[in-house]
Amino acid sequence: MNKFFPDVETITYQGTDHKEDLAFRHYDANQVVLGKSMKEHLRFAACYWHTFCWSGDDAFGGQTLMRPWFEPGDEMQQAELKMDVAFEFFEKLSVPYYCFHDRDVSPEGSTLAETVSNFDKLAERLQQKQEETGLKLLWGTANLFSHRRFMSGAATNPNPEVMAFAAAQVRQAMNVTHQLGGENYVLWGGREGYDTLLNTKFQHETNQMGRFLNMVVEHKHKIGFKGNILVEPKPQEPTKHQYDYDSQSVHALLLQHGLQDEIKVNIEANHATLAGHSFEHELAYATENGIFGSVDMNRGDMQNGWDTDQFPNSVPEISLAMYIILKGGGFGKGGINFDAKVRRQSIDSNDLFHGHIGAMDVCARGLLNAANMIEDGGLDKAKDSRYAGWNEELGKDILAGNLSLDQLADKAVQQNLDPQPVSGKQELLENLVNRFC
Amino acid sequence: MNKFFPDVETITYQGTDHKEDLAFRHYDANQVVLGKSMKEHLRFAACYWHTFCWSGDDAFGGQTLMRPWFEPGDEMQQAELKMDVAFEFFEKLSVPYYCFHDRDVSPEGSTLAETVSNFDKLAERLQQKQEETGLKLLWGTANLFSHRRFMSGAATNPNPEVMAFAAAQVRQAMNVTHQLGGENYVLWGGREGYDTLLNTKFQHETNQMGRFLNMVVEHKHKIGFKGNILVEPKPQEPTKHQYDYDSQSVHALLLQHGLQDEIKVNIEANHATLAGHSFEHELAYATENGIFGSVDMNRGDMQNGWDTDQFPNSVPEISLAMYIILKGGGFGKGGINFDAKVRRQSIDSNDLFHGHIGAMDVCARGLLNAANMIEDGGLDKAKDSRYAGWNEELGKDILAGNLSLDQLADKAVQQNLDPQPVSGKQELLENLVNRFC
Amino acid sequence: MNKFFPDVETITYQGTDHKEDLAFRHYDANQVVLGKSMKEHLRFAACYWHTFCWSGDDAFGGQTLMRPWFEPGDEMQQAELKMDVAFEFFEKLSVPYYCFHDRDVSPEGSTLAETVSNFDKLAERLQQKQEETGLKLLWGTANLFSHRRFMSGAATNPNPEVMAFAAAQVRQAMNVTHQLGGENYVLWGGREGYDTLLNTKFQHETNQMGRFLNMVVEHKHKIGFKGNILVEPKPQEPTKHQYDYDSQSVHALLLQHGLQDEIKVNIEANHATLAGHSFEHELAYATENGIFGSVDMNRGDMQNGWDTDQFPNSVPEISLAMYIILKGGGFGKGGINFDAKVRRQSIDSNDLFHGHIGAMDVCARGLLNAANMIEDGGLDKAKDSRYAGWNEELGKDILAGNLSLDQLADKAVQQNLDPQPVSGKQELLENLVNRFC
Amino acid sequence: MNKFFPDVETITYQGTDHKEDLAFRHYDANQVVLGKSMKEHLRFAACYWHTFCWSGDDAFGGQTLMRPWFEPGDEMQQAELKMDVAFEFFEKLSVPYYCFHDRDVSPEGSTLAETVSNFDKLAERLQQKQEETGLKLLWGTANLFSHRRFMSGAATNPNPEVMAFAAAQVRQAMNVTHQLGGENYVLWGGREGYDTLLNTKFQHETNQMGRFLNMVVEHKHKIGFKGNILVEPKPQEPTKHQYDYDSQSVHALLLQHGLQDEIKVNIEANHATLAGHSFEHELAYATENGIFGSVDMNRGDMQNGWDTDQFPNSVPEISLAMYIILKGGGFGKGGINFDAKVRRQSIDSNDLFHGHIGAMDVCARGLLNAANMIEDGGLDKAKDSRYAGWNEELGKDILAGNLSLDQLADKAVQQNLDPQPVSGKQELLENLVNRFC
Ligand SMILES: [Co+2]
Ligand SMILES: [Co+2]
Ligand SMILES: [Co+2]
Ligand SMILES: [Co+2]
Ligand SMILES: [Co+2]
Ligand SMILES: [Co+2]
Ligand SMILES: [Co+2]
Ligand SMILES: [Co+2]
Repeated sequence: MNKFFPDVETITYQGTDHKEDLAFRHYDANQVVLGKSMKEHLRFAACYWHTFCWSGDDAFGGQTLMRPWFEPGDEMQQAELKMDVAFEFFEKLSVPYYCFHDRDVSPEGSTLAETVSNFDKLAERLQQKQEETGLKLLWGTANLFSHRRFMSGAATNPNPEVMAFAAAQVRQAMNVTHQLGGENYVLWGGREGYDTLLNTKFQHETNQMGRFLNMVVEHKHKIGFKGNILVEPKPQEPTKHQYDYDSQSVHALLLQHGLQDEIKVNIEANHATLAGHSFEHELAYATENGIFGSVDMNRGDMQNGWDTDQFPNSVPEISLAMYIILKGGGFGKGGINFDAKVRRQSIDSNDLFHGHIGAMDVCARGLLNAANMIEDGGLDKAKDSRYAGWNEELGKDILAGNLSLDQLADKAVQQNLDPQPVSGKQELLENLVNRFC
Repeated sequence: MNKFFPDVETITYQGTDHKEDLAFRHYDANQVVLGKSMKEHLRFAACYWHTFCWSGDDAFGGQTLMRPWFEPGDEMQQAELKMDVAFEFFEKLSVPYYCFHDRDVSPEGSTLAETVSNFDKLAERLQQKQEETGLKLLWGTANLFSHRRFMSGAATNPNPEVMAFAAAQVRQAMNVTHQLGGENYVLWGGREGYDTLLNTKFQHETNQMGRFLNMVVEHKHKIGFKGNILVEPKPQEPTKHQYDYDSQSVHALLLQHGLQDEIKVNIEANHATLAGHSFEHELAYATENGIFGSVDMNRGDMQNGWDTDQFPNSVPEISLAMYIILKGGGFGKGGINFDAKVRRQSIDSNDLFHGHIGAMDVCARGLLNAANMIEDGGLDKAKDSRYAGWNEELGKDILAGNLSLDQLADKAVQQNLDPQPVSGKQELLENLVNRFC
Repeated sequence: MNKFFPDVETITYQGTDHKEDLAFRHYDANQVVLGKSMKEHLRFAACYWHTFCWSGDDAFGGQTLMRPWFEPGDEMQQAELKMDVAFEFFEKLSVPYYCFHDRDVSPEGSTLAETVSNFDKLAERLQQKQEETGLKLLWGTANLFSHRRFMSGAATNPNPEVMAFAAAQVRQAMNVTHQLGGENYVLWGGREGYDTLLNTKFQHETNQMGRFLNMVVEHKHKIGFKGNILVEPKPQEPTKHQYDYDSQSVHALLLQHGLQDEIKVNIEANHATLAGHSFEHELAYATENGIFGSVDMNRGDMQNGWDTDQFPNSVPEISLAMYIILKGGGFGKGGINFDAKVRRQSIDSNDLFHGHIGAMDVCARGLLNAANMIEDGGLDKAKDSRYAGWNEELGKDILAGNLSLDQLADKAVQQNLDPQPVSGKQELLENLVNRFC
Repeated sequence: MNKFFPDVETITYQGTDHKEDLAFRHYDANQVVLGKSMKEHLRFAACYWHTFCWSGDDAFGGQTLMRPWFEPGDEMQQAELKMDVAFEFFEKLSVPYYCFHDRDVSPEGSTLAETVSNFDKLAERLQQKQEETGLKLLWGTANLFSHRRFMSGAATNPNPEVMAFAAAQVRQAMNVTHQLGGENYVLWGGREGYDTLLNTKFQHETNQMGRFLNMVVEHKHKIGFKGNILVEPKPQEPTKHQYDYDSQSVHALLLQHGLQDEIKVNIEANHATLAGHSFEHELAYATENGIFGSVDMNRGDMQNGWDTDQFPNSVPEISLAMYIILKGGGFGKGGINFDAKVRRQSIDSNDLFHGHIGAMDVCARGLLNAANMIEDGGLDKAKDSRYAGWNEELGKDILAGNLSLDQLADKAVQQNLDPQPVSGKQELLENLVNRFC
């Protein structure tokens, strides 16, 4: 396939000496790191939507990206053209995975029935494409936020018929994901939130959401899908407040609805910082609470208050993120998706490659740095030594629940305890990290 | 008692015609609103710490507030002087309640034993003062954040001996609160968080916190304390991230540790906005999830990123807050504490009155407005009509769990559903609110 | 004209007793306040763009607002239909003014020549409409941000031909504004900024902007336009950083390019808060520095980091804003534009009325409150007394430049000065404000 | 001198192979980069205040850092002890410069006269210390924000006597700086702002500030001080709004008061991000507008909204900063000050070294990376090519002022211009930067 990027060859690893822009300098798919190849560790995926469906428009301006499949014409044919270009891109980029929403690959029909039929046809074609190219599906999802019927929510809509409509989409998207061998199924609740509390039954809506998520989990088991169900937290935008605000908020929802062992999170770096957290924070919360699923490795702009969905470019930040992920056991069925778009001014088709190549190289460097930090062991050792007291009698007794407040207080008073603080050594640890980044 | 505010009489309700600064214009304690007096509704408390222990210092400057009890001298005598002034103030202000930390009223001794003994003595004196004045205790708490021994946390310290020390303080503070007839006991985890993940075992620390909270609840039952145990969420400051970030985060912690029926939240308006939420949001979350306890009604500055702890001054904002609280059943054992301080430049002793009087008037107006909104019923009616579909068959079946994803999806496809969106009417509802604010 | 809002009569003042939604409760156009009618004070304008050109789309979803003029068809005919509806709306709303961008009223042609010709024709039609209805133009402006040719800036584009194109638009928009009797001409530099410094010659671009603004001012004088030229500050969005960040940034630009007496600012409340300031701050800066021009009275959401452009709804906030504006001499040629859009879910055509009616009532209450504060005089008096020292010898000498640092320092040392701080009385003043709000 | 850090030797460059914490891995003072040694390029300074005067207190807790000079005792003797330790530290750290406020080195006396006399004595001792050690003074400044007399501002105080007091301090601090061979004199206006507009004459205060700055400049010339006068912008904290908000705000003030050629800015990274800008933005603004003076190279925490004053640790960020500084001509008389403090939990005396060593290594890496980017030339070339049109006739004519709006518009219309956008290539440029970072 050589339709849209005729001058681009398959991107290959060339090392740091080369001067070509269209090559990897650090991502060497087969290089072994901590016993696995980079490819197996990082499980890169490119996304269909920002890469092939976004026209460059923003809140203050229209299309800047001129793509033939945006031209007027038969929608199914244009979807096929877009799919051809997408797979040309995925293949040339050498990513093993891709991700999509139902509506990215398949147009809305004039009725729900036609919409379903469109998607069935194009899902078949996706399957052929996967077979031809060896591409795999990291995750599928349903777009429950673009159409006006979802303007007041999908699962959390005041109208139960909208939830029924959403169920039809999600059912098909799950089935297609299963059929395509997808490794996860993701739900992002862009409209599952509120614009104003004045018109919102808060608890009613989160209960609707809890029921919907349970339906999804039940359906997963029914069809035998072995992948993970993931919720992607985002604090706000488009709505004022989204119910899946951050990992801990999602965790609260899961705990309330008995779903904590069934659903995990897909953490996006940009959403982490919009929520007032660091990316590492969200990763630490999820890995340590057993709900880590996958990652959207796209950053925001720390001076702008909206979702800029930029490709990652900070090696130290990604190194710390990869450190937490590796310490948490790695990606498992998850991976690194780039839910990232080139800037609105990046109108050359090759800019799509530059964005992804740079991001993949940054992740490869992050992986290498994280592996070095793990092999060095200094960070672990410092933590273990800081908490050593919890391996002794008092600490063990407390955590085992052997001591009441009275008993613990009595110990303190009887021994006239005067515990002395110990340096937290933050600067020393930051220096240690910088040896590897 | 007339030591420190010799020129101030008891503050009384004078209505809006008077021109005196030292009088209530709106707070008429005995005025009946929705069947209860304002005093019973609002349950006002003044706080000991900001009002009597803060010297006016900030990160860039020292003492501005010259109070005799800050002068060098015998610490116990100074504590008694401060207590005399505090009760003079509470009484003249006509608040029914006050709140304190152990260290606000009682100085740290040179050993834990002396510290405990100091507090026992001064607790006795507090009891006398309460009896003399009729003042009541809304809540007590322990200061587990000022002393350097807590610099790395109290319950979440890497050193279990620090948790033991904290247990001694909390045990005594709970017992004193119980002895003084306190209606709640509060925990604010100012140091229960992290400055850097590099030196932090995240899950270990939250497990420590879970165990500690359980100890507190067990102790409550053991001593027969009938008040509520409350956690006060705050996202950050002094630490980079606090584990009790917001109401939903606290809820997740409670659910993880089986405490959701035992612990509620004390919501501070300033902490709500620092967490990226509105005050109403936090109130709605807590009331609708059954964990609403009490309120710190002090605002922040929306252009500044730290805890300014200012007295409330926006009538519309407090009206919406009171609306949610009243709709949620009112304060119960909770109340309105002002965890607020006069500005650093407000160095006149009477400024303490101005801050509180203005705040109480704003709350009184908020209560009246909220009551009017409730009696009008328009907001409720609009919500009920928006969600009416959930009272019909489809909605009921969904929420009852009678429909699988397949069954719900089948309905949508078979009926070729095309649900039409309905206006959310946000502007109309905002106008409706403004009829009452 | 009764095409689009057949059931809506002209909105009239009915007072606070009435229960109709489609009436003013507070805005009584002819009510005299401080010697002028409300209408003359407030100089309300509705905007063409958000009200008639926005389809309800946002970054995550498409059209929700179904308007006949968005349907496919002859663009000039659709523009005429839209114009008919707009004037129907303006007239029924009883605003004396409106505002528009060239592209709001007149479609882009296939060439610049055709674009110019379209606008000439439709400007003629606007003139007829104004004559028929008595509507007046508060300000006109040119849209230099939506089309992809402006993606990298208009006046600050790396390509000088884009500045030439912008000049053609601005020249015509200025001429049309002049022809229509517009009272101001506004420039908003949505793309005059950068997305990354890596591809930006910062100073080069601001010099381009300085030259362009000078051209605009020269042209104003050439054509004899007597209105004000206004720049509308906005910190960011769509770009990462806009050169007209806030009032003080614009002032720096004006001072650098000798334009401080020729150009003023149009202050938008939402842009003020996005810049990290309060609305009052921006108004105070502009009025006290002699560059206050006009106002876009639409608020943002303090918990969301993007331009939500909501109708104002906080009476206390608008009261303080109006206080500063009145103290600064009032609007002059400026006025109150609502650069506001109904929420994406407010899909009923009447929601357009609700948004504007509520906003106008809030402004009317703000005006009344501000007038009461001015008549009371308490705020002024407190300020004058606080700064009284500057009317005495030392203060006068300092400001007159009569004292060198040495001389002033000598005074301090020789007199062993020990100036005592005086309470800033913030709480008392906030209470005073609340007597009127 | 070996009083406080007995186990620490002079810190030396050891390269990246060594494993010692108390050594430089990258900062090799004599390594030549772009024709100058690292030492000459970077001009490192350590600060007196955070390093030796801060006790570890924050808004919620007291002293954690136990230093002998904080103990009760004769204040002048304690100041001498502190000075000995400070110079021991500076010398062992191998920084060529230091910075101080008057009150850091010399205690307030009971009268202004005594305060002046204290400082004269200790300034003499500083001079001896400088001579003994070869240390130099990067800049001096006066503390006009800690004492309660300055609670409402120094130069902008409502009481002119406070300005007189400030003049006495600044006069002496300037004279001492001159006497000690300081290379700059800095003013930071921590209290030059407002807490509420309700009690503030905005323009009056900024005029006071303008007059004061002019006095300072006149005094500089009078005493023959050849260093630069610098203002350090900060948006807020401790006040709600500071008049020196950011570089552009300061520039506006300078332009208004005719000081743009006399005063430059000292840019702090943490203040840049608190102002909603990137550090690079502030550097670009200042260097391109000719007001760049010096740098406080300490970062904030992007998730926290207050001044954390942390040591820099991000190599890519510092590399971009150094790139802009080098492109702007380097530091001149300025340098890199660390206005940074170790974390409150970093209570070991050696933590002071770890903080500075890590920061200096990060700056050294930043310098090397920036030099490589400059030598590569790719970034420059990309910019020049993007703006090439401005070197052709049309662009030159526009900037030379040869074209009126009419003439430029005519060109566009007559030629029916249709300028085509060109990719901004942001991703490609970010990848290019990552080749060097
Ligand atoms: Co995103
Ligand atoms: Co995402
Ligand atoms: Co607070
Ligand atoms: Co509080
Ligand atoms: Co706006
Ligand atoms: Co605007
Ligand atoms: Co700082
Ligand atoms: Co600084």
